[in-house]
Amino acid sequence: MKHALSVTRSENFAAWYQDVIAEAEMAEESGVRGCMVIKPWGYGIWERIQKLMDARIKAAGVDNCYFPLFIPLSYFAKEAEHVDGFAKEMAVVTHHRLIQDGKGGLVPDPEAKLEEPLIVRPTSETVIGQAMSRWVQSWRDLPLLTNQWANVVRWEMRTRMFLRTSEFLWQEGHTAHADRADAMTETLRALEMYRAHAEDDLAMPVIAGEKPENERFPGAVATYSIEAMMQDGKALQAGTSHYLGTGFAEAAGIRYQDKEGGQQLCHTTSWGVSTRLIGGVIMTHGDDDGLRVPPRIAPQQIVILPMLRDDDGDEALLAYCEDLRKALAAQSALGEPIRVLLDKRAGKATQKRWAWVKKGVPLILEIGGRDAAGGQVSVLRRDRLYRPDGKVNFIGQDKAEFLGQAASELEDIQASLFAEAAARRDAEIHREVTDLAGLEAFFAEDRKHPGWVELAWSRPTGAALEGVVQKLKALKLTVRNTPMNDAPVSGTCPFTGEPAVERIYVARAY
Amino acid sequence: MKHALSVTRSENFAAWYQDVIAEAEMAEESGVRGCMVIKPWGYGIWERIQKLMDARIKAAGVDNCYFPLFIPLSYFAKEAEHVDGFAKEMAVVTHHRLIQDGKGGLVPDPEAKLEEPLIVRPTSETVIGQAMSRWVQSWRDLPLLTNQWANVVRWEMRTRMFLRTSEFLWQEGHTAHADRADAMTETLRALEMYRAHAEDDLAMPVIAGEKPENERFPGAVATYSIEAMMQDGKALQAGTSHYLGTGFAEAAGIRYQDKEGGQQLCHTTSWGVSTRLIGGVIMTHGDDDGLRVPPRIAPQQIVILPMLRDDDGDEALLAYCEDLRKALAAQSALGEPIRVLLDKRAGKATQKRWAWVKKGVPLILEIGGRDAAGGQVSVLRRDRLYRPDGKVNFIGQDKAEFLGQAASELEDIQASLFAEAAARRDAEIHREVTDLAGLEAFFAEDRKHPGWVELAWSRPTGAALEGVVQKLKALKLTVRNTPMNDAPVSGTCPFTGEPAVERIYVARAY
Repeated sequence: MKHALSVTRSENFAAWYQDVIAEAEMAEESGVRGCMVIKPWGYGIWERIQKLMDARIKAAGVDNCYFPLFIPLSYFAKEAEHVDGFAKEMAVVTHHRLIQDGKGGLVPDPEAKLEEPLIVRPTSETVIGQAMSRWVQSWRDLPLLTNQWANVVRWEMRTRMFLRTSEFLWQEGHTAHADRADAMTETLRALEMYRAHAEDDLAMPVIAGEKPENERFPGAVATYSIEAMMQDGKALQAGTSHYLGTGFAEAAGIRYQDKEGGQQLCHTTSWGVSTRLIGGVIMTHGDDDGLRVPPRIAPQQIVILPMLRDDDGDEALLAYCEDLRKALAAQSALGEPIRVLLDKRAGKATQKRWAWVKKGVPLILEIGGRDAAGGQVSVLRRDRLYRPDGKVNFIGQDKAEFLGQAASELEDIQASLFAEAAARRDAEIHREVTDLAGLEAFFAEDRKHPGWVELAWSRPTGAALEGVVQKLKALKLTVRNTPMNDAPVSGTCPFTGEPAVERIYVARAY
Repeated sequence: MKHALSVTRSENFAAWYQDVIAEAEMAEESGVRGCMVIKPWGYGIWERIQKLMDARIKAAGVDNCYFPLFIPLSYFAKEAEHVDGFAKEMAVVTHHRLIQDGKGGLVPDPEAKLEEPLIVRPTSETVIGQAMSRWVQSWRDLPLLTNQWANVVRWEMRTRMFLRTSEFLWQEGHTAHADRADAMTETLRALEMYRAHAEDDLAMPVIAGEKPENERFPGAVATYSIEAMMQDGKALQAGTSHYLGTGFAEAAGIRYQDKEGGQQLCHTTSWGVSTRLIGGVIMTHGDDDGLRVPPRIAPQQIVILPMLRDDDGDEALLAYCEDLRKALAAQSALGEPIRVLLDKRAGKATQKRWAWVKKGVPLILEIGGRDAAGGQVSVLRRDRLYRPDGKVNFIGQDKAEFLGQAASELEDIQASLFAEAAARRDAEIHREVTDLAGLEAFFAEDRKHPGWVELAWSRPTGAALEGVVQKLKALKLTVRNTPMNDAPVSGTCPFTGEPAVERIYVARAY
């Protein structure tokens, strides 16, 4: 069967991913190393993600703020542990002026060298910590719950659009608390918020759990993640939430006077999701005809395509389509007004149809002159694109009938996309492996998309964990996380031979 | 009369401005040179501005995108004129890694010096122009209408919060068109959009007009602005829109095939407003008791303050207040659901009242146990804070009566703030000056807040204009703009002695 993309998932998953992004006009390389241009359809999805996530953040009583792009070098020097972890590859600003080089070009002005270099923020714990140390004085100021929507830069050597770019967009929550219990409650609240966002908004099933010690955010006491399975069986870490203990508070001096008058260090947390989520959406829902966008995050949920013929009939056809658009826009689905576009642009109807198929708009309505005359619509569900015979699955309906069920259709698509992804994920979580040889054999098999292996292990730490990490690394595997609130386990850890204490997921990952 | 701020506008306007920002908890110095931290109340106002402006931008068919933070140095070198204008003072990234210096500190790694320095965007014409040169092929691709919400950096030597900071937040619209007429229409559409936003959303009267040649954006063919008068009589350029001709298109190679098959350069525009608008709101509406926020951009329009007494009565009082909150939240004002907060935090009621007065929330409701028992509310309009006798102007009302008029009250505050600002502005536009000596005398007068002078001039250019600019500069004055669609003028230009052809506003400015 012929598909809209030039490469299929089974032929070459990585090339397919790039092709979806190009054909859906989501983003492109910018010509600036490691940075992408996010185009209207990709940015529209990000705006939807922002809107839905921001509502969740605000509902939790977290206040949005904005902190500086630049962080003085000395802030990093204070936090050696932080720097050792990931902060070495960063964009460093050393000058604040350009001058002519006398040869028609421009160079940084040696006279305008900064006394102290500035780092373009890779994350904002340090600079927000400084602000918190000013804002927190007494137990009455706690908890302090802040968030910012911002761009951050990490100098990545190998980049892939949305998944790993030098500059990316994200939200970073930063909170300060009186004690461990309150900070841990917030850490897990953010984790659950991310799970709900991924599953309910993005229709992307995830496993929320704790990362192993070696995968913790540098300086964190505990790191939690949501992990999603992509269609190639790899894991995508789609959001993280960190309990930072008192280490960051100590470095930044975030102290409060307790009710008894004593000085206490705050316990802090941080949590973030980024434009990486869009990569997850593509690899969860895309098919060989392009993207499929879950209705909740679709910039347009329904596109109406009039089959214009450049003749006298066009006027009546457009009037019919405009009535349809108005009637849909006046309805609500999934708790918001339906987002519907009447695409009146010039161009062949089939070309326009396939452009919207590749963009993944949930419902496409093609309306011809005969439909208009007969009060009909021709409806295509993006998640049911073809009939068994390979034909495009347009379904003719009475306009009134369609209007009566458009909202529930969108709700059904949202649910179907989730169910499809969850069934695939569940089928690709394998539980038959019980020892290291089995693990090796499993991932050595000539399977393109091996999925994840669920194991029970002894939760090794330190050198014992490092041994496990190295063994897995040789197989290009990582421990993803330990699911929250899991049932007790039994048996023996395949790595250490000690009694197993908890489940983990082992997988290849992005 | 005692006021909530420690300094009044008439005592020291600049100190008053800083005091409003501090006392309303809008922003603070970050410790990073030239960068501020925007705190929740300030950022909440920015979110409101973004929401209202973004709706206007989208309604005009402009698509949001996102372009890279970094711009390769060579992009600037291409545009000498661009660079000569303002692009010299910029943050230059020269390295991409830090290493330990062996003395416990960190330094940029000499091994990780970039082959080509990257500039942190001061504005994005160059990098967006590169994208447009890829996106525009044929006349069918035009007009191309893009916008981004982003942070930009201009290395400012003297900074002032919101008005002039090294990093600031803004939107920048960039459009490409087939011809001059279409590009000029877009330039003026954006200008009118900014006028409407300033006047209707921010309640800030502005004069929309064309900047004189010497004040054009570097490389622009024409620059338009909206100019607002602050309470100290100075002008604030609050938004600009530029018709860029074909110069930027030529530098970036933005060409299209016309209907006859010929290659044509595009005509481009750009337009932006920034967090500077918040500075304008403060200096337009603030008074000696702090900020007054127009209801349309107020993060909270109504705050309910229960007079808690830590006794048995609190429960009934809170229930009454919560009912009131729900009833208000279910209403709409100014086209959106009313934003109402029930402030249950601990603390003295009067302290909380004055905190909200200083933040400028439009309506404050104080509710005591007796009000709750009697079905009453006590209402304070921020724009009518005191009675003639100097007492705080709380007005007791039946709850039902208040609920019936809350929306119109907010609408009235929005209109009143505009009317007050417009009356003050109009009274401070002076038309009695007709020659240079008169201008000098006018601004030499020992008046703190001299306002603007409206003149008719001959629209000099080149060296003649430069002469005017220098004369005005000696008086610390600038030509603000020539109002759009103005009536014909007569008389003689006070600068050149030639016949006057158009009106201008001459003023001190931020």
